[in-house]
Amino acid sequence: MPLTYNEYYNERTGLTVGLKKLLFSKQSEYQLVEVFETDSWGNLMTIDGMVMLSEKDEFVYHEMLSHVAMFTHPEPKRILIIGGGDGGTAREVLKHDSVEQVDMVEIDKTVVEASKLYFPGVGDFENPKLNVLYEDGITFVKNIKVPYDVIIIDGSDPVGPAEGLFEKDFYQFCYNALSENGVLTSQTESPWVESYYPSMKKVFHALNDLFPISKMYLSYIPLYPAGMWSMAIASKKKNPLDDKVIDRVAGSKNLLQSLEYYNPDVHSGAFALPNFVRKIIDKE
Amino acid sequence: MPLTYNEYYNERTGLTVGLKKLLFSKQSEYQLVEVFETDSWGNLMTIDGMVMLSEKDEFVYHEMLSHVAMFTHPEPKRILIIGGGDGGTAREVLKHDSVEQVDMVEIDKTVVEASKLYFPGVGDFENPKLNVLYEDGITFVKNIKVPYDVIIIDGSDPVGPAEGLFEKDFYQFCYNALSENGVLTSQTESPWVESYYPSMKKVFHALNDLFPISKMYLSYIPLYPAGMWSMAIASKKKNPLDDKVIDRVAGSKNLLQSLEYYNPDVHSGAFALPNFVRKIIDKE
Repeated sequence: MPLTYNEYYNERTGLTVGLKKLLFSKQSEYQLVEVFETDSWGNLMTIDGMVMLSEKDEFVYHEMLSHVAMFTHPEPKRILIIGGGDGGTAREVLKHDSVEQVDMVEIDKTVVEASKLYFPGVGDFENPKLNVLYEDGITFVKNIKVPYDVIIIDGSDPVGPAEGLFEKDFYQFCYNALSENGVLTSQTESPWVESYYPSMKKVFHALNDLFPISKMYLSYIPLYPAGMWSMAIASKKKNPLDDKVIDRVAGSKNLLQSLEYYNPDVHSGAFALPNFVRKIIDKE
Repeated sequence: MPLTYNEYYNERTGLTVGLKKLLFSKQSEYQLVEVFETDSWGNLMTIDGMVMLSEKDEFVYHEMLSHVAMFTHPEPKRILIIGGGDGGTAREVLKHDSVEQVDMVEIDKTVVEASKLYFPGVGDFENPKLNVLYEDGITFVKNIKVPYDVIIIDGSDPVGPAEGLFEKDFYQFCYNALSENGVLTSQTESPWVESYYPSMKKVFHALNDLFPISKMYLSYIPLYPAGMWSMAIASKKKNPLDDKVIDRVAGSKNLLQSLEYYNPDVHSGAFALPNFVRKIIDKE
């Protein structure tokens, strides 16, 4: 019988991906990490049966989670990534010349190990600016002494070890750990699964309470449930839709040439929220 | 064994939807039309095993296929819909006060029959401005004597009876059948399945050759393959991104209140194409 990977959301709605074979399977202290060779998406990583990335579509998630925040900050030097063990977010962040140090705090070494073995194009783990720490992200953020310019929350779904990354307390710690022009981004799941895994409203309201500027934006990730994926951005001073930000994006021609999804139009257009998405995050 | 509906694209990548029961199944002269009651998407219509619409997500496709073109025209009176047998596109078009006549040319009466029975919220078939004709759309367009202000191509996938709706000859007939300020829109499949069902590039280039103005835009439809769906718009004179158009959208408060997806931000934002989508339609 042909092998398939099946992930269900929204009762029995789901995604099926044809597989060639299982390449990696390890139950870590935290979760089950698996890598499959697929028919048409390159290698695919799942955690506890949920898609994390495929080689063919990872560019969407990683570019959109990184560049919107990185360009919103006028000169990001110190970057913190919470989670992001596959290395894709760090790879994108490191494309910005201003960056001096990227601290990536991944709770589970197994994710990094699997990525190094089976996603050679995703991580840039040899980059001397990248510092990988295997620690609990929440504890790490609570104890930060030297502030960061950009914090990116690149956690998995709000079940299992990433659950705390959707709580207001955590975002308060992040606020405290951000520099004056600090910008934060977090992945907040799909609006279409909000009733099953409440994330968007919770995170957006937390950010809206804590930060002077907070917004949601969208991108399309084919192997994530329903395809429409939301991300939140918040900052102390800098508006991601400011003309200066858009000019900065448009002026970064070399960086943009390496990208497959993000561009100046996409930066602005991603903030156009359909009515039903606005309703989810509206304060009541 | 629990019932599921499975649609595969891109080799063995696919969508699974949990079903309660089959409500309708009829092999018409053209295709197999089926309606299922699903777990979480309301009723679902498929044609030859491909999702056409569900009650829960149809608003995205119908709003985005209709209103971008309808607002681009300054005063659309005579509207032609090719296909669109479920009635959802006509329902959206009829929300515009300027509309005097909507001719909907659907080749397959079975689609209308299934919609009337199982999608009571989708069609507005009793509206006196709506004129349903059961004819071949291509032959109809070839013989048009009185021009239309807006033509909307709401066909199914480019296999089976809708295949001709992706050909340049057809768009030449449409051009001839449009009034001076005429606007045309067509659904052009997902950029993620372009290599399997070439549609976007073919239609965009046909429109680009024929019309002074042609653009592609995107929306997110959870039950369509990969979620990211493209549509093409072309016109003789009117640019969908003109300030006058955006003002017209923003000023239509009553109409906008009835919508779940489309709004002025979405109108503009939908035209922001990711780099990999731009590459698909770039002339070579």
